[in-house]
This record gives sequence, C-alpha cells and structure tokens, in this order.
Amino acid sequence: MDSRDLLGAVSFSDEKMQKVSLFGSEHYFCDLYCLKPGQEQRIHRHRESDKIYCVIEGKGLFHVAGEERSLGAGEIVVARPGEDHGVRNEQDGDLVLLVFMSPRP
Amino acid sequence: MDSRDLLGAVSFSDEKMQKVSLFGSEHYFCDLYCLKPGQEQRIHRHRESDKIYCVIEGKGLFHVAGEERSLGAGEIVVARPGEDHGVRNEQDGDLVLLVFMSPRP
Repeated sequence: MDSRDLLGAVSFSDEKMQKVSLFGSEHYFCDLYCLKPGQEQRIHRHRESDKIYCVIEGKGLFHVAGEERSLGAGEIVVARPGEDHGVRNEQDGDLVLLVFMSPRP
Repeated sequence: MDSRDLLGAVSFSDEKMQKVSLFGSEHYFCDLYCLKPGQEQRIHRHRESDKIYCVIEGKGLFHVAGEERSLGAGEIVVARPGEDHGVRNEQDGDLVLLVFMSPRP
C-alpha cells in the first residue's frame, strides 16, 4: 500500500521552497511544499489547471486573484484557472502545504 | 478567495458516511469524508481514476488492493486505477478524510 506520513516526508532547504512529489499521474500531481521562514512560491498562474493548497503545518500568507489571506493548519484554498496565486511563509516556524493540481500542466 | 476551514466544514450523519464537496472541476473532485464510529466506505474500484485519502482527524482502517493498514492524522494513501479500496472507522472517535480524485469518474 502506497501510504506516507506527511510530516515524515518533508524536506527543507535554506535556499528555497522545496517540492516533494507524493503521488501523480498524467491527470494530476499531489506534492508537499516545504517553506522555511521567509520563503515563498512566487505569484504565477496556470491557464487550465486548478491548484489546491491545504495547510498541514504552520501558517502561510496566500495570494489568490488579487486577494491576500493568512491560512493555518486545517485550512484549504483553491486557485482556479487563470487566477494569480502564490504563498509566503511570514511566520517564524516552518510551513508545510499539501498541494493538488489538476489537470497536470 | 475560496478558502475553507476543514474541521468547520465537517458534517456527520448517524445513518452513513457523509461526503462534503469542497472543490472540483470536470477534471477532479476534492471532498471531505466524515465517518462516525462504525461507518465505512465500502470497498469498490474505479477503472481510470486515482483516489487519494488524507487523514485530517481520527484513525481509519484502509483497504487498498487487498492490503489493510490503519492510518492516522497526517497520513496519506493512494488507490490507483483498478485497485479495490475502502475505509472503515473502527475507533471510538470521528474520522475526517480529505479526498482527491482525478480524473473525475
């Protein structure tokens, strides 16, 4: 059975946000994003895909379609096709996100 | 911004497991499954879709492709196309799962 412990799978770098691939197919990916304090995923967009961020640990400042919101563990947000989106760890602790994207870009 | 608090979105029924739709498109769905003690999603399969279960709260007994494993909060598992899969809440507490499926069946 292909199961994982999310917090056991985290990987951080002093250099930049790390993406850890968990599962995927030609239709989607499911990754962990691991952000140390001050790290970010810069604002970008995808033409055809939804991206879902679920906060597993920590708190992130999310930007979606021009709006900013701070979301913590147990909160989830979607960026729809064409919507600018990004996230920044402005806290003192680590930030771990479960990320789904479909269709795969 | 379309964000949700997962534990604020839960909905239980004494009758059977509840599915709460969070996000979706023609390519995927992202739901919460809410199981009271003794409730289950019976073993079934999908011909073309991956299904991912992530445990948000509680502990579930998962069945995937003939194997059984107990998974708790922060653990995640995938059932690939054609693999039998299901989950049962055999604990005394509630079970909340974040479920992602792509492509949408």
